[in-house]
Amino acid sequence: MSEVYAVRRARLRECCNAVGSTAALVSRPANVRYLAGAAPEGAVLLLGSTEDVLLCAAPPDDRSPQTRPDDSLRLHVTAGAGADPAVAAAGLAVAQGVDSLAVEEHHLTVTRHREIHAAAPKLRLAGVAGAVEQLRVVKDEEEISCLRIGAEIADQALGELLESILVGRTERHLALELERRLVDHGADGPAFPTSVATGPNAGRPGHRPTDRRVEEGDFLSVCLGATYRGYRCEIGRTFVIGTAPADWQIELYDLVFSAQRAGRESLVPGTACRDVDRAARHVLDSAGYAEALPVRTGHGVGLEIDEDPQLTPAAMGKLDACVPVTVEPGVHLPGRGGVRIDDTLVVRPEADGGPELLTITTKELLAL
Amino acid sequence: MSEVYAVRRARLRECCNAVGSTAALVSRPANVRYLAGAAPEGAVLLLGSTEDVLLCAAPPDDRSPQTRPDDSLRLHVTAGAGADPAVAAAGLAVAQGVDSLAVEEHHLTVTRHREIHAAAPKLRLAGVAGAVEQLRVVKDEEEISCLRIGAEIADQALGELLESILVGRTERHLALELERRLVDHGADGPAFPTSVATGPNAGRPGHRPTDRRVEEGDFLSVCLGATYRGYRCEIGRTFVIGTAPADWQIELYDLVFSAQRAGRESLVPGTACRDVDRAARHVLDSAGYAEALPVRTGHGVGLEIDEDPQLTPAAMGKLDACVPVTVEPGVHLPGRGGVRIDDTLVVRPEADGGPELLTITTKELLAL
Repeated sequence: MSEVYAVRRARLRECCNAVGSTAALVSRPANVRYLAGAAPEGAVLLLGSTEDVLLCAAPPDDRSPQTRPDDSLRLHVTAGAGADPAVAAAGLAVAQGVDSLAVEEHHLTVTRHREIHAAAPKLRLAGVAGAVEQLRVVKDEEEISCLRIGAEIADQALGELLESILVGRTERHLALELERRLVDHGADGPAFPTSVATGPNAGRPGHRPTDRRVEEGDFLSVCLGATYRGYRCEIGRTFVIGTAPADWQIELYDLVFSAQRAGRESLVPGTACRDVDRAARHVLDSAGYAEALPVRTGHGVGLEIDEDPQLTPAAMGKLDACVPVTVEPGVHLPGRGGVRIDDTLVVRPEADGGPELLTITTKELLAL
Repeated sequence: MSEVYAVRRARLRECCNAVGSTAALVSRPANVRYLAGAAPEGAVLLLGSTEDVLLCAAPPDDRSPQTRPDDSLRLHVTAGAGADPAVAAAGLAVAQGVDSLAVEEHHLTVTRHREIHAAAPKLRLAGVAGAVEQLRVVKDEEEISCLRIGAEIADQALGELLESILVGRTERHLALELERRLVDHGADGPAFPTSVATGPNAGRPGHRPTDRRVEEGDFLSVCLGATYRGYRCEIGRTFVIGTAPADWQIELYDLVFSAQRAGRESLVPGTACRDVDRAARHVLDSAGYAEALPVRTGHGVGLEIDEDPQLTPAAMGKLDACVPVTVEPGVHLPGRGGVRIDDTLVVRPEADGGPELLTITTKELLAL
């Protein structure tokens, strides 16, 4: 694995050289993990002119492969409380003869940036402006494999929940049970706070579980994901509680299903991100739900649950192969509830069979 | 309650005026919540020259008192994706005739600070340098009451766990069960990721639960906390699994217990923070454990689990009455395990009975 990280660091070094910096300081945790194989709390990575160094405030916990940094990195533990590894990294850069250090201005606070400058006043601080995030967009097969296993775990947890009695249980309890099942099946943990929404709450994006209990006739929408070896996926489904859904529930469900399918089917390399959004949004717009729509219909996933690309009306850029994204349109009708259907898929060329669906739980409208 | 928030904002306004700013932009979520009563995701608070405005990227969820902002604030929803409420706040400040805006430089990133400046180039951006954090150190009785209830919840969750069979269960499962019990008893959620550590892991500060199972003869150390109405407390205890602890376990436990008691007993208004640390540390130092000690023996708690004051050898400042802190010395012996005892207490004058212990689970060495 060590080689993977070295190759990633070489690519970042090229980006930095192109803007005139001979070294870079990476501080955003997901970026540190991407380039170093692990991100101990507070650790920063110095891509130096003579060697790469992972700086930590305390010795990293290296008992598991997931938390053990890449062997080819030198490890530097900054001593004592309050010693900021980023400030120490600036000192190391100067000692290596670096005169311009690229830093993550979108992650460093103003105060921390000033402390780095104060510790090494002759060092010019440049910006790397999301360079690592851009490298992270297209995944290798090892990364996709982690997402695939995470999706299997989420599918299993959701499948087991559906076999249990739901009426009378609270949103909070169902969410906790799902998170327990994720861990039971081997997840590092939930990829984000599990959302369970019943009745009038159903279909609300990012709904935080309440003490409302599941009732007969409710819509029940669930959104969860597993983290597996650091990679985060997402699945969302909506069900009906009781023997038979009402007509308005079937109509709304079919509509959101069509919108989600349109989004999924447009996931082809070379498609503009905004066109994926438009494909899904158009279906809902045409049915008169323009006002009820969220600002986006999907986003990239990986070491973070919300990465580039963004699937929004104003998004720039096109989809590449091997980019995992969510497609998650929904409609929420205040006071009545709503529907949300959310999959994680990987963009693949048509010759390879088109988009690869990672979250395979059925999208039929189940009455539970 | 509305008055409480208005008073807090008036105090911050005084701090800003003292440094020559007529307005302030608060962006750190816990600070926004402290001053506005709620912190919807991404929201910022403008303390303006003519009115105070809470700016959010999406309409806040105001169905529960915990997420409903203070009524006396004007609410401003910035439209569309990517519209940063902080940038919008700078525009509002200019419209109010503000020429100098104090911002939280320890929270704003370099990029965001630059965007605010670009949107309002004539506005001078000053720093407020932890001013809200300082206001937050001394709690009112309403805040302490939330911490007290949170501590009761954590005590209950821990007490129930102790009554169950522990041998053979994994650290991960025990941690998840504790978190479920916290929510069962009315917590908003865990105050921080619950730590359960067995055998050689016991006593490691911040240990992340693994798949190791509890065995006879183990030390078992547990650290958990509840969030109640936003306020976070902490309790840590160490137990022995089996009928009788070994001699080394009893000795180590007694030592850490003495250190923790020394720390607790020194919590008197006017005591230097470093002297609390020294009181606890001295006991362990004298017994030859100087090397094994963590960098601090306690810290403040409140809307965040780690607030000022810090109880470290180099800490500046003195304790005030009504400041809640943890006292949590511990010793970890690599390969053997260790002991950690952690309470949340409120500093009170001796005339009021001295430090108020919020986490009341026994600190006797229980053999489970």
